[in-house]
Amino acid sequence: MNGNKRTFQPPYYAVIFISQRTTGDRGYGKMAEAMERLVSKQPGFLGVESARDNELGITVSYWESLEAISNWKKNEAHKIAQEKGKQEWYQNYSVRICKVEREYSFEL
Amino acid sequence: MNGNKRTFQPPYYAVIFISQRTTGDRGYGKMAEAMERLVSKQPGFLGVESARDNELGITVSYWESLEAISNWKKNEAHKIAQEKGKQEWYQNYSVRICKVEREYSFEL
Repeated sequence: MNGNKRTFQPPYYAVIFISQRTTGDRGYGKMAEAMERLVSKQPGFLGVESARDNELGITVSYWESLEAISNWKKNEAHKIAQEKGKQEWYQNYSVRICKVEREYSFEL
Repeated sequence: MNGNKRTFQPPYYAVIFISQRTTGDRGYGKMAEAMERLVSKQPGFLGVESARDNELGITVSYWESLEAISNWKKNEAHKIAQEKGKQEWYQNYSVRICKVEREYSFEL
């Protein structure tokens, strides 16, 4: 998904998820696809952008409100994925909940 | 830099920079290294995390205040880099200025 073409109207919220994976897939790819489908139907979800290289993965998701973020965190299927994440997929991760106050973009 | 080991005390600020590159290096690597050295000396700079794959690059930098972000944007050497970015290195980019309200992390 190319979020650079999409801009939203601040204020809205961003969740910055930064992770280092364990080695091997361990079912991660399949679950990631399922979560992507599921989150896209979540009320208040605006969009998501991801990049991963050998060092680090960064996923930023965008939301209308803190309540929408909280509801997604409590989603039952997502809770199972979160648990598997701790057990299998991530060496470490950090989550930052942010209010987007301003944005601008450039396009050739 | 592995920011997952470092946490800061909210509230602080994050700048989410998401970009698609043009093809070829065009002097980007050298300038990126110079900017990394320079930003690390900038007052109010807390840290930076980056990931780039074939689709997208995401860089998140962390700052003590909006004023510190504004001062870095106005830095003379950084302004030259910003100009080169538009002329040479980026097909498109978006910049989001955010207040980090909450964070948590996990480590195996």
